[in-house]
Amino acid sequence: MIIVLKPNISKKQESTILKEIRKRGYKPHVMRGVARIVIGAIGDELTHQSLETLLTVFPQIVESVMPVQKRYKLVSREAHPQNSTVKVGNHVIGSKKFHVMAGPCSVESEKQLLTTAEAVKAAGATMLRGGAFKPRTSPYEFQGLGEKGLKLLAKARKLTGLPIITELLSENHAGMVADYADIIQIGARNSQNFQLLIAAAKTGRPILLKRGLSMKIEEWLLAGEYVLSEENCNLMFCERGIRTFETYTRNTLDLSTIPIIKKESHFPIVIDPSQGAGRADLVKAMCKGAVAMGADALLIEVHPNPAEAWSDGTQQVSLEVFAQLMQELRPLILASGRE
Amino acid sequence: MIIVLKPNISKKQESTILKEIRKRGYKPHVMRGVARIVIGAIGDELTHQSLETLLTVFPQIVESVMPVQKRYKLVSREAHPQNSTVKVGNHVIGSKKFHVMAGPCSVESEKQLLTTAEAVKAAGATMLRGGAFKPRTSPYEFQGLGEKGLKLLAKARKLTGLPIITELLSENHAGMVADYADIIQIGARNSQNFQLLIAAAKTGRPILLKRGLSMKIEEWLLAGEYVLSEENCNLMFCERGIRTFETYTRNTLDLSTIPIIKKESHFPIVIDPSQGAGRADLVKAMCKGAVAMGADALLIEVHPNPAEAWSDGTQQVSLEVFAQLMQELRPLILASGRE
Amino acid sequence: MIIVLKPNISKKQESTILKEIRKRGYKPHVMRGVARIVIGAIGDELTHQSLETLLTVFPQIVESVMPVQKRYKLVSREAHPQNSTVKVGNHVIGSKKFHVMAGPCSVESEKQLLTTAEAVKAAGATMLRGGAFKPRTSPYEFQGLGEKGLKLLAKARKLTGLPIITELLSENHAGMVADYADIIQIGARNSQNFQLLIAAAKTGRPILLKRGLSMKIEEWLLAGEYVLSEENCNLMFCERGIRTFETYTRNTLDLSTIPIIKKESHFPIVIDPSQGAGRADLVKAMCKGAVAMGADALLIEVHPNPAEAWSDGTQQVSLEVFAQLMQELRPLILASGRE
Amino acid sequence: MIIVLKPNISKKQESTILKEIRKRGYKPHVMRGVARIVIGAIGDELTHQSLETLLTVFPQIVESVMPVQKRYKLVSREAHPQNSTVKVGNHVIGSKKFHVMAGPCSVESEKQLLTTAEAVKAAGATMLRGGAFKPRTSPYEFQGLGEKGLKLLAKARKLTGLPIITELLSENHAGMVADYADIIQIGARNSQNFQLLIAAAKTGRPILLKRGLSMKIEEWLLAGEYVLSEENCNLMFCERGIRTFETYTRNTLDLSTIPIIKKESHFPIVIDPSQGAGRADLVKAMCKGAVAMGADALLIEVHPNPAEAWSDGTQQVSLEVFAQLMQELRPLILASGRE
Repeated sequence: MIIVLKPNISKKQESTILKEIRKRGYKPHVMRGVARIVIGAIGDELTHQSLETLLTVFPQIVESVMPVQKRYKLVSREAHPQNSTVKVGNHVIGSKKFHVMAGPCSVESEKQLLTTAEAVKAAGATMLRGGAFKPRTSPYEFQGLGEKGLKLLAKARKLTGLPIITELLSENHAGMVADYADIIQIGARNSQNFQLLIAAAKTGRPILLKRGLSMKIEEWLLAGEYVLSEENCNLMFCERGIRTFETYTRNTLDLSTIPIIKKESHFPIVIDPSQGAGRADLVKAMCKGAVAMGADALLIEVHPNPAEAWSDGTQQVSLEVFAQLMQELRPLILASGRE
Repeated sequence: MIIVLKPNISKKQESTILKEIRKRGYKPHVMRGVARIVIGAIGDELTHQSLETLLTVFPQIVESVMPVQKRYKLVSREAHPQNSTVKVGNHVIGSKKFHVMAGPCSVESEKQLLTTAEAVKAAGATMLRGGAFKPRTSPYEFQGLGEKGLKLLAKARKLTGLPIITELLSENHAGMVADYADIIQIGARNSQNFQLLIAAAKTGRPILLKRGLSMKIEEWLLAGEYVLSEENCNLMFCERGIRTFETYTRNTLDLSTIPIIKKESHFPIVIDPSQGAGRADLVKAMCKGAVAMGADALLIEVHPNPAEAWSDGTQQVSLEVFAQLMQELRPLILASGRE
Repeated sequence: MIIVLKPNISKKQESTILKEIRKRGYKPHVMRGVARIVIGAIGDELTHQSLETLLTVFPQIVESVMPVQKRYKLVSREAHPQNSTVKVGNHVIGSKKFHVMAGPCSVESEKQLLTTAEAVKAAGATMLRGGAFKPRTSPYEFQGLGEKGLKLLAKARKLTGLPIITELLSENHAGMVADYADIIQIGARNSQNFQLLIAAAKTGRPILLKRGLSMKIEEWLLAGEYVLSEENCNLMFCERGIRTFETYTRNTLDLSTIPIIKKESHFPIVIDPSQGAGRADLVKAMCKGAVAMGADALLIEVHPNPAEAWSDGTQQVSLEVFAQLMQELRPLILASGRE
Repeated sequence: MIIVLKPNISKKQESTILKEIRKRGYKPHVMRGVARIVIGAIGDELTHQSLETLLTVFPQIVESVMPVQKRYKLVSREAHPQNSTVKVGNHVIGSKKFHVMAGPCSVESEKQLLTTAEAVKAAGATMLRGGAFKPRTSPYEFQGLGEKGLKLLAKARKLTGLPIITELLSENHAGMVADYADIIQIGARNSQNFQLLIAAAKTGRPILLKRGLSMKIEEWLLAGEYVLSEENCNLMFCERGIRTFETYTRNTLDLSTIPIIKKESHFPIVIDPSQGAGRADLVKAMCKGAVAMGADALLIEVHPNPAEAWSDGTQQVSLEVFAQLMQELRPLILASGRE
């Protein structure tokens, strides 16, 4: 920790602070600068009590307190310099092969799901997404088919061989969802619902952790740290857009997370352009950017008839548009050195 | 719903859209404007399927789709023009009497809690706050004393007579927390954890619902709608700061929520300046603003020794500062026509 | 400056960095911590070249670089511990007396302006506001009456004795606006138009500097520093709302700027609730909060017939509402120890 | 305009509103819906007075007022369905050929500029960027070489044949900057400095208009409308990152502007990843995304020795990194169907 003192501090005030630093187990190291005194407090910030309270308790003496250590450990590339990959069935996410997870926002019916599953497989998708439990802003909106939806997903997997990814909403459903799903998705609204993260991690299933609507990258990495702390190392980060002042799009998809997650962490990064833009007409361009920037996979909402979707119809692309998108992505995937 | 068509639309395109509107159960009403055609779709937006997907499915024809109904019902002042109040023990929140809920961020020990409880009571607080389960950004930080903390809160209530408010973090703890707490707090990170909201509402205890870090007011009201849908009418909204670009404060306390919640809803509004500012030195001014603007209560973090607090020490005020704050608030409470 | 090195840095890498620090005129001071090496670079950050580029040039060695000095000087309370006041005619802003600047968004006609001027004076306002040059998002909107508007403002001053405040939009109009205005307003969109700030400051008139829509407090203080650098010490800061994700209000009025500006600077702080909320029905509550929190003045848009205003009608209050507001503010002004 | 009335409105209240609508020159069209009455006001919103004030003046009757027309005209793709291109010397921006504008943040010396110009030309850049007038947050920072910098840019153009782009900061310098520059840049802080936009447009030079830090896309298009209103049709939009809550990067580069500007407008879109990320280590990935998503050009900060740059050293890439980046972009440019 670095403690910056205010200008013109007396000897007595200085020693008050030095005493407080020592009391908390740190070794103070004083630097007398041109304008003010700066104290380095040497000690492990992760195991000692924070010194940030000095700012509040001695507001006449202390100007600012700055941590020097990063708060995340297991998730950090420092701790694990080579890339980590996540195995799902015969697939490996985070390897040279690029993956596309596609399917409807909500599972609505057997016909809707199976039609979509077969079409996305034919177009080249490697995994099937579909929501059985849906977090909806209003209690009056469709909340998902629940376990019936999970059973339909399992049926679609049997038919197509595509592994399935679906969202977990309640701690009490962790076991049930893990019984059906190949990947458990933690949604943006639950990205700091730590009890849910722990319950999901404990199932041992791979976890796709979406970024919260106003989650800083450091907080996202720390939420991943909750998964790793439960000894589940099958983690993927998924950017799906953050909330900003702009209202043209539903969210602002932050594609800079691709190089940042690659730099700070060793786990794969997945991009969800459907939630990110909230508009099907922007999905194609977003996917192209994500591929070129080095994402490991895409998560795309596809519906046989978006106009009649029971949820988020405006952001789902049709089967035809999806097939065309996959064609257009191919040259970019190759140009980016992926398969 | 209002559907705005693009300029220069053919007769055939117009009838395509009219057909789609009828198919979804709405009655279309065409207005030919100067620059473009606008269609009013008459029907109950809360029970019919949304027409917003027309925008995506017919991007060549439709320019925009705008809802005209508000999405919240039970929580709305339209549905209940007079103020609703919440009874807690002998106290009534939302009445003429102004309330102050005060206490430590986390319950740390019997001594810490009882000292604080007695001091805040002496200074004029009417309720005791204290966290037993703490949502922490990092898994390596103090997570709260759990049920032991709840027992200490109950002890403090017995001693001082102050009703207690504490946060619920897990669906599985809803019963346990309700056994001890007079008010259940739903924190900002869980404000759209609908499963938790439902579990909390079902206990029948009054619910204090904090605004999420990037929650729009409409979403906050709709989250309240989840509580009311479970037939729990003891709801309070609590503003605690939103996340903006500003880094001087931890969050930006949005005091405009006071007149807005009063206008849109019939439930009480509580202000939490401690989380809002994240800095004890700003808490006093924030409290004064909240009182003058018509808040029903304050939720303030108080600690006998903020420098040694196990969580969020920088935003907790000392017992002395709290007593002084209560003195300074009095003339403003009276000048605002409260008691 | 504090330079934090990455973990496991070699002796050779460490000396590379030490050499670079010395080359830029700082004296390095090495602290060997538990997890990593931290270097304090001693020297005046305002006169030396920044060391932040070390982060980019030696990304394998340097983890972060943190400044320890504040970047603003003349505007800072450190430089001038007692409050500064601004004299305008017989009035002193920043003194015990609370001020209200009121008037129309745009000057539209002699009748509109004089009616408003007399009404706001009768209700207790101490200064008259009115826009002659208007910054409008679209080139097709009313751009103000220009010099004709300034002449009308001068006439209203003659009639009522109220000093006038009006916005400067162009460097080329600085002289002309200064000839008529008692206070020159720099609007939110021009808050970092430094050439305009310099031109305004050079006229010697008091400057009211609005906060930009996404301006950090540090940047606002530094923009004020541009005014002071031109030896104009008649500066006022004016909060008028920042841009956030919330769409219920046009902007989010950040009332926490009142205690913050008071703490960091010695100049007065003025609150503009009209722009802040963008809705007349919220203006009253905002004004009350501002008074209770210690603002020095209010800037309020008032129009004899808001429904027919040529600009920003939704945020202007009527003469009746203004008179009523002034009545309601009185007890709060007294309760806050002001006059 | 669409006017939504509150529920349970009397006949008399309804006719009050109808009268007001007619008074402003619109023809009202009443639709009686299930929950409330909706009125379509037929008339040209760009030439008539806005009806939004009805919301404020009749708050008991009117619930909301929604415009149906877009506010921008000349800049809109509706007005000009095919792409517009901008000619600069022998180059055409917005055509099949992809362009790269590269050079230092600030012009510092003849040697620095000429070295950079020759290196970026050799690497494939088609234009030279360089700042002679610099908008700096603090008055104590380097403000640019002024006209001396412009002369050096002209010299570099003579030597390399690269057209030059440089920023205009003051209305008073419009003529001078136009004498030297091939493209005039309007910076983010001045994106709503309409007087500067008008002065720049009047020179007839192509204008590169950066997006403001918190500028909505509609506002950006309307700022472009100011340029077109001066009969200057050589307009380019340039995304350079918006301000959000995230602090890992200096700004959040919003790459979704590429498909959005292409959809809403007919003018070229340029991406500036240097300002966008504020970190040289992220520039490469950003450039790749921009190319794949269909940008027309890149604007990249390059410096022979970023560690010693006089401004924004952390975001400038070295000559070597730039040459390598250009190599890596080639396959993506081809895969995107550009040259």
